[in-house]
Amino acid sequence: MRYLEEKDIDYIAIGAAILGAGGGGDPYIGKLMAKQAIKKHGKVKLLSVNEIDDNGLFIPSAMMGAPAVMVEKLPNGNEPEMAFRSLEKYLGKKAHAVLPIEAGGINSCIPIYTAATLSLPLVDADGMGRAFPELPMVTFSVAGLSATPMVVCDEKGNKLVLETINNAWSEILARNATIAMGLSSMISIYCLNGINVKKYAVKGTISLALELGKRITESNKSDNDPIESILEISKGFKLFKGKIIDVKRDLTTGFVRGKVTIQGIENDTGSSFEIDFQNENLIASKNGKPVAITPDLITVLDKEKGFPITTEALKYGQRVTVIGMPCDPFWRTEDAINQVGPRYFKYDLDYKPIEELVKENLS
Amino acid sequence: MRYLEEKDIDYIAIGAAILGAGGGGDPYIGKLMAKQAIKKHGKVKLLSVNEIDDNGLFIPSAMMGAPAVMVEKLPNGNEPEMAFRSLEKYLGKKAHAVLPIEAGGINSCIPIYTAATLSLPLVDADGMGRAFPELPMVTFSVAGLSATPMVVCDEKGNKLVLETINNAWSEILARNATIAMGLSSMISIYCLNGINVKKYAVKGTISLALELGKRITESNKSDNDPIESILEISKGFKLFKGKIIDVKRDLTTGFVRGKVTIQGIENDTGSSFEIDFQNENLIASKNGKPVAITPDLITVLDKEKGFPITTEALKYGQRVTVIGMPCDPFWRTEDAINQVGPRYFKYDLDYKPIEELVKENLS
Repeated sequence: MRYLEEKDIDYIAIGAAILGAGGGGDPYIGKLMAKQAIKKHGKVKLLSVNEIDDNGLFIPSAMMGAPAVMVEKLPNGNEPEMAFRSLEKYLGKKAHAVLPIEAGGINSCIPIYTAATLSLPLVDADGMGRAFPELPMVTFSVAGLSATPMVVCDEKGNKLVLETINNAWSEILARNATIAMGLSSMISIYCLNGINVKKYAVKGTISLALELGKRITESNKSDNDPIESILEISKGFKLFKGKIIDVKRDLTTGFVRGKVTIQGIENDTGSSFEIDFQNENLIASKNGKPVAITPDLITVLDKEKGFPITTEALKYGQRVTVIGMPCDPFWRTEDAINQVGPRYFKYDLDYKPIEELVKENLS
Repeated sequence: MRYLEEKDIDYIAIGAAILGAGGGGDPYIGKLMAKQAIKKHGKVKLLSVNEIDDNGLFIPSAMMGAPAVMVEKLPNGNEPEMAFRSLEKYLGKKAHAVLPIEAGGINSCIPIYTAATLSLPLVDADGMGRAFPELPMVTFSVAGLSATPMVVCDEKGNKLVLETINNAWSEILARNATIAMGLSSMISIYCLNGINVKKYAVKGTISLALELGKRITESNKSDNDPIESILEISKGFKLFKGKIIDVKRDLTTGFVRGKVTIQGIENDTGSSFEIDFQNENLIASKNGKPVAITPDLITVLDKEKGFPITTEALKYGQRVTVIGMPCDPFWRTEDAINQVGPRYFKYDLDYKPIEELVKENLS
């Protein structure tokens, strides 16, 4: 049995941002919330997927919208509980534990906050193993499970319960409500029994994030290379080392789409590297050839220290190391690729696993 | 005890459009729905407000959005029942009867459809005694009662349950959802007990609409003046007779705002008349001086036959008679004027009852 303490929150936020593949936003507010809830209500019991009851009810708790907005439009702290408890009430059942839905800055912290506040355990798993921008981009959705009933709450006290004919409509209606609520909301969604958590969740996400964050922090205090330790834990690949020479962003479509250009240094001197992103990093190419493609994870790190840089924090002049990591095998099925692969994001490109691309185009 | 039959539907639709003060839209689809439901499920019992149980539950059933859209985006017929039954389920109580919320084209027919379909009685009352464009413009809202819990359903099968901190937020969130659903939805809202229906509803709206529609239709078949019979029943005033010489419409704000200019004929030859509208007719002026102001009712009629012309049907060249009718006394309180008076609609003008304006500016 493992418990999450206040000091674990920083590690988890760092590790989840690495898994967030550029997305998931600034976890600042989420970290404060999670730490304060643990201080007030005590440690959070972390349940491995093997330990959960097949017939138990497991409810995710997450933030929806633009994390940047939450720094000014502060949560009042009751919304995650309101969303979670309202969904329990709507279903007429009590949840056994809180389930994370996404690995990424703020959404690694919100479920911990909710679990601490409600004195419930947290499941060591999630529905992505990374970050993605839309509600149906979750393993449970690809498996055919419904996102609804779901609840959307804002910091003012407004609440919506949604039941939709499919998860694309959940995305449309919840996104519209979130925008009307001022661009951020707290949601509970994808209520699951233990059997479906066991079948479809990405396992061990929280302990993986914790391990990643802890190793980077400790490596920085010793002589070890923090980036090597990330690659070791995540079975990832070092893709490029360089200096950011251009960042283009386009906000017209409601999401942040853009491209970052990196000029090689050290061993990569003379080469150039590009990452296309839409909230998350989606396509990484070296000298015009793809070396990692969504749903595999592409993460930009501080060149030496290994701390993750989200897409919104990319700036001209930063010295970075780009890494790529294989996604959970679930994402590599045909149905999953249709939902989160490059063509869904309008790139004229077929998905190929990072292991193959690295062999073909990196050396 | 009175029952509504299939043949009453046309009368009610005509009468409600007169009370709709230019708003409420084309009742075509609503009439078909209500007639078919009565044919299938039998007549609808009409309960006067005196007959209802103080502790009973009364739930409105209505269409939200643009009635014009429904002619192409047809309802599937289950939405009103889905909204109504979902609200009952959410409250854990069964309704005693369906309550109309608005007098106007389509929303005079939808509650009859719902009552027939669910084999429930219909209350002979509503929440406006006329038509208005926004959810909080209801007597119950001015009285401080909550619009929520409310349910919004679309023809595809999507459903939202809303609980908001005030009725302005109900309007924002339900309007957004309705737009996302394709500009029309079916709602149930303002659940009331019998005591509050008795205190705040506008009484006798359905039988008044029926009486108006029947008298106009019958007067047209005999030698009686249909417009005189409307004025007699509604205690209204004939404001102007003329030919429409200009109609301006502006759609930029989400509602149809506009102005119609009428050139006097017969006794009004040499005078001009203007009506400012925003979905409903709001201000009527003769030779620049106001003769009727919202919330009093301003309705444009076919000059001779007396059939109502909604704002969306106003056209150059139409020969019309404009009438004005006093609103329900409830709307003349200070709180109500703040919510539905001319200043709410951004006109720099104070409300004055039509009886006074007619004396001052019409003769």
